[in-house]
Amino acid sequence: MEEKKKTNIILFSGDYDKAMAAFIIANGAAAYDHDVTIFATFWGLNAFRKEGGVHTDKGRMEKMFEKMMPRGAEKMGLSKMNYAGFGQKMIKNVMKKHQAMPLRDLIAMAQEQEINLVACTMTMDLLGLKEEELLDDIQLGGVAAYLAEAEDGQVNLFI
Amino acid sequence: MEEKKKTNIILFSGDYDKAMAAFIIANGAAAYDHDVTIFATFWGLNAFRKEGGVHTDKGRMEKMFEKMMPRGAEKMGLSKMNYAGFGQKMIKNVMKKHQAMPLRDLIAMAQEQEINLVACTMTMDLLGLKEEELLDDIQLGGVAAYLAEAEDGQVNLFI
Amino acid sequence: MEEKKKTNIILFSGDYDKAMAAFIIANGAAAYDHDVTIFATFWGLNAFRKEGGVHTDKGRMEKMFEKMMPRGAEKMGLSKMNYAGFGQKMIKNVMKKHQAMPLRDLIAMAQEQEINLVACTMTMDLLGLKEEELLDDIQLGGVAAYLAEAEDGQVNLFI
Repeated sequence: MEEKKKTNIILFSGDYDKAMAAFIIANGAAAYDHDVTIFATFWGLNAFRKEGGVHTDKGRMEKMFEKMMPRGAEKMGLSKMNYAGFGQKMIKNVMKKHQAMPLRDLIAMAQEQEINLVACTMTMDLLGLKEEELLDDIQLGGVAAYLAEAEDGQVNLFI
Repeated sequence: MEEKKKTNIILFSGDYDKAMAAFIIANGAAAYDHDVTIFATFWGLNAFRKEGGVHTDKGRMEKMFEKMMPRGAEKMGLSKMNYAGFGQKMIKNVMKKHQAMPLRDLIAMAQEQEINLVACTMTMDLLGLKEEELLDDIQLGGVAAYLAEAEDGQVNLFI
Repeated sequence: MEEKKKTNIILFSGDYDKAMAAFIIANGAAAYDHDVTIFATFWGLNAFRKEGGVHTDKGRMEKMFEKMMPRGAEKMGLSKMNYAGFGQKMIKNVMKKHQAMPLRDLIAMAQEQEINLVACTMTMDLLGLKEEELLDDIQLGGVAAYLAEAEDGQVNLFI
């Protein structure tokens, strides 16, 4: 029996458009029967945050990061032409017009397709993000977990 | 007979310096006899735009994107130290001094070396870019076309 | 005897957080017994610069780049929420609190683990960086050197 091909994406970026690209590739690869994993690290973790506020017990610095970082996928800005959120609104408008899925739905589709969503524990610590602030069914892992997948991967990307 | 190695680059970025890196790697890989494909998506599509204005029939939102986005490779800015175009001028000056090829020539060389240049149809739709606004001999494709190449690729990069 | 697996990272970015990610993955891969190479190009070269000033003989344009670019790893800013260096200070504070290694130490660890650190000669020329401005034991190479490694690599990333 042939082994499944593997796609492993490190999502470092906290930009809406880059995260869209990551999830479009990931969902495509899952449709082509790849084993797919998205490892979110640094600002990419914001895509995995719950949208509502979550009560947590944190230090001052961690509270600051919590407030300054976008709470969930739909709050993330664009990598280009963001213009204080105006560009992001424009993109969302054309997406609606073209019936393209918003990032929130691309993430839900990834979960339905059983794509592994892994949050990097080291950067969660740094940014003070707690597990209860993340969406359900997010796994936790480190660089070792990433490498174990990536060294057998056909498509490895850093986004 | 041994199969050719494959290099597949997703060019997401609309930055002059990142696009330069993409085309230098691509041209190098073609010289080393790889089968090379560059998939431009999102802002990376600007590298494939014709330099002159092209008359097209578009909606209001698409017209706005058309005007706001750089028209062709040589209009793109730097990812760092752009300083409203000043940094880009500096880089172009030192490139001339060192006889390094400008991006426009790197793209022409890619076409001469028969590197596949593919524009992502989904993001063309989103940004309202029409086929007639792109350089000649650009292919159109989606995430399926990308994955078909990438799953057999030795060098897969997201730039 | 089985050949060692290979991890090859192109470090294009001059951002502190992205360079951290690159060196954390690289150090992890070396610990997992991969042959690891980091090719620094464009702004990524700043991570390889010595911290002190180095007397060199340069043209006017090259002097400008020398002054404008960060001198060494610890001077690099964040890709997000840098706020003129304030975000970078915040990150360094939480890193200290969590006993995470600063970038300077991640680079030293990479050198101890015999990770190949290669500076791209073409972009050194463009930015006017001289070999004597770089840390000790940095190799020099071009796109050919990169491709020779990458075409046999398991994990190839562009950061």
